[in-house]
Amino acid sequence: MRPPTPPVALPGPRTLAADLSSVPPGTSVTLRGWVHRRRELAAVTFLVLRDRSGLAQVVVRAGDGQDVPPEETVVEVTGVATANAQAPGGIEVTAPTVAPLTDPARTPPVELWRPALDVALPTLLDHAAVAWRHPAQRARWEVAAASLRGFREVLDAQGFTEVHSPKIVASATESGANVFAVDYFGGPAFLAQSPQFYKQQLVGVFERVYEVGPVFRAEPHDTVRHLAEYVSLDVELGFVHDHRDVLRVLRDVLAGMVAGVHELAAGAVATQGFEVPVVPDEIPVIHFAEALALVGAPADEPDLAPEHERALGRWALAEHGSDFLAVEGFPMAKRPFYTHPQPDDARWSNSFDLLFRGLELVTGGQRLHRHADYVSAITARGEDPAAYATYLEAFEHGMPPHGGFAIGLERWTARLTGAANVREVTLFPRDLHRLVP
Amino acid sequence: MRPPTPPVALPGPRTLAADLSSVPPGTSVTLRGWVHRRRELAAVTFLVLRDRSGLAQVVVRAGDGQDVPPEETVVEVTGVATANAQAPGGIEVTAPTVAPLTDPARTPPVELWRPALDVALPTLLDHAAVAWRHPAQRARWEVAAASLRGFREVLDAQGFTEVHSPKIVASATESGANVFAVDYFGGPAFLAQSPQFYKQQLVGVFERVYEVGPVFRAEPHDTVRHLAEYVSLDVELGFVHDHRDVLRVLRDVLAGMVAGVHELAAGAVATQGFEVPVVPDEIPVIHFAEALALVGAPADEPDLAPEHERALGRWALAEHGSDFLAVEGFPMAKRPFYTHPQPDDARWSNSFDLLFRGLELVTGGQRLHRHADYVSAITARGEDPAAYATYLEAFEHGMPPHGGFAIGLERWTARLTGAANVREVTLFPRDLHRLVP
Repeated sequence: MRPPTPPVALPGPRTLAADLSSVPPGTSVTLRGWVHRRRELAAVTFLVLRDRSGLAQVVVRAGDGQDVPPEETVVEVTGVATANAQAPGGIEVTAPTVAPLTDPARTPPVELWRPALDVALPTLLDHAAVAWRHPAQRARWEVAAASLRGFREVLDAQGFTEVHSPKIVASATESGANVFAVDYFGGPAFLAQSPQFYKQQLVGVFERVYEVGPVFRAEPHDTVRHLAEYVSLDVELGFVHDHRDVLRVLRDVLAGMVAGVHELAAGAVATQGFEVPVVPDEIPVIHFAEALALVGAPADEPDLAPEHERALGRWALAEHGSDFLAVEGFPMAKRPFYTHPQPDDARWSNSFDLLFRGLELVTGGQRLHRHADYVSAITARGEDPAAYATYLEAFEHGMPPHGGFAIGLERWTARLTGAANVREVTLFPRDLHRLVP
Repeated sequence: MRPPTPPVALPGPRTLAADLSSVPPGTSVTLRGWVHRRRELAAVTFLVLRDRSGLAQVVVRAGDGQDVPPEETVVEVTGVATANAQAPGGIEVTAPTVAPLTDPARTPPVELWRPALDVALPTLLDHAAVAWRHPAQRARWEVAAASLRGFREVLDAQGFTEVHSPKIVASATESGANVFAVDYFGGPAFLAQSPQFYKQQLVGVFERVYEVGPVFRAEPHDTVRHLAEYVSLDVELGFVHDHRDVLRVLRDVLAGMVAGVHELAAGAVATQGFEVPVVPDEIPVIHFAEALALVGAPADEPDLAPEHERALGRWALAEHGSDFLAVEGFPMAKRPFYTHPQPDDARWSNSFDLLFRGLELVTGGQRLHRHADYVSAITARGEDPAAYATYLEAFEHGMPPHGGFAIGLERWTARLTGAANVREVTLFPRDLHRLVP
């Protein structure tokens, strides 16, 4: 191969753009980042430099003898911190030396320097690695990352243990449909649709567990809220009385995610105007049967349609001032076999969906915990308990009453940032039609 | 289905086993957990209760009129905290009421109450969900979970952003071999062998990124250190001078993982006698060419054999008092195309392996960052750059000098806990012969 470029010397300390405002005027500073915007006027060129912390303004005068390379070129700028009330943070850099750290960049496929990233969704997704550089786009992921930290902090503080369960599994037993098949050393295997079975088994070990990881659904629907692969925030805990205890933990988790956003993505929230929800001390709960009546649906509807969810979201906001609403008691017939029935009426279940601004964000509930109940439930669905042997072993050897939930990261982020489509908040989305980039 | 068991009332506060020692004697307490051991003597039965925090001793006298259910049954015990110097923590529970929370448990396939879990590996793995309940086994995962928290804490503090990249990918381009094929809506796809390409592209967005997630290798070797699916701790950062900057971040990360173990898994370390390493302020570095000479290998060997790694581990301990040794400068011919060559001699690379007690734990290094260098490197290997189009787009539009590394969680945990086989520290391992449980 051709000899590579000699390595670039990156000596000395670096000032991040966000820290420039606290540098005393007159100080020499070194910035490193991307040429976000090059604006050439008659006697002066404005170079807006972008780094991981934000933007900084560099003023290049003709007398400085410096070329400003094209936008997105990576540069090192050394100059003098100079007060200017018009500059971001009140400080700009003057009398600079502008040293490119790489070749001049090609013009990006999307105009990253414009305040709004106004491109069609396919363009955004086709050029994801570059489009995510746009501050408005990047802000969305900052919310996602901050939420993840908040999620873990709450659970760590409540005695939960992080676990990692396998994504290649032997059978498609949880739902049967919508699974991806894998060639596993010449034999059949599948991609896990959820860590459900594993997190339950691990309640037998750690009592309280969580996992953040990918789940896979061969989702044949091309909608704004479905992905073939997404990040699931899974929680499961033992020694609950019923699903209401699970819901209480979910409330704390959501409050922690919101706190994480306020603490770690405050800049993103402020610049983009994201409407961060307030999590009430108690999330309002409505029974499925009442919810149907409220939205005027027939009493024998087995599920909530998207328009029902939206109506319930409006109701929760009007009635309880809450962006969140838990609908409990979903019909057993529509829930997985491991769902715990409602004790006083086995048509209904001790499970819930959590709506966030009228969109299903979380599914959770109490699970069966007696081995005999599993055998009955599986048999009643016309399946053979032997197919679930390794899962059921945990229940033969003592499992406490337990339950849990799963939050879809992309739905959470989309709803919080006002994105119309979960694809806009997914770094590299996968769906029926998209496998690249 | 048959009517389920009425839900168990779990009223009132619960005392964890580990907190019993701080309860004033004479206080009424409620414990919940598993019957870890039932030892029946003539006039008294000792019930050792296990919960997520540890073990507690319950003394059941004949006059208490209580049946103690078999081991692993989940129970609620209410009784009186009573001083006894022989009990764990100096407090036991007497005059108990023992209420089973589920049916009597079947005898477990492994004897969980014995101090050591002395079973053959296949038994351990076949009955993983139950075997992980053994305190000695559980302690291993506590080390893993504590390490994960330490890993993230260090990176969060250093301005890194957590990312999640797709695990279903369009091509097997990174190495070609050892990939799992997926049926993706009727078309071909593969499971990602690493987040390498994505984490590099995201350096263009966030400068510093990390990801904890599964990676997949259709590993045809049946060894004690290979898995078909494992948890990779991936880090990538921009604006480095060379791989030595990457190694410095790796040092901090390892120090954080060790701190996490001391802080969060102290009980596991103490009871199991795990030898937690000390991370030196600077990890000793040896060049690949010197390393070959040191172990007496021919100068044209392209890689280090396991016995070489072990010899180098012994040397690092003897010479530098270090459990860690970085071997830098691996031959370019054996490294992936994105590897940055050593500037003064392009036979070698700016990459390294980190050995932990004589076992390769981490691979890392500096990557190419110029688009032209990528085109050359890919072409030189007889491949078509067009096959890497979406990856290379990030480099056309400005990428800083950067590098990163990946730590295998299972190797780290195995080495730290003294496990001979990575399968012993993996919750539900996957390999050539194992797809269940």
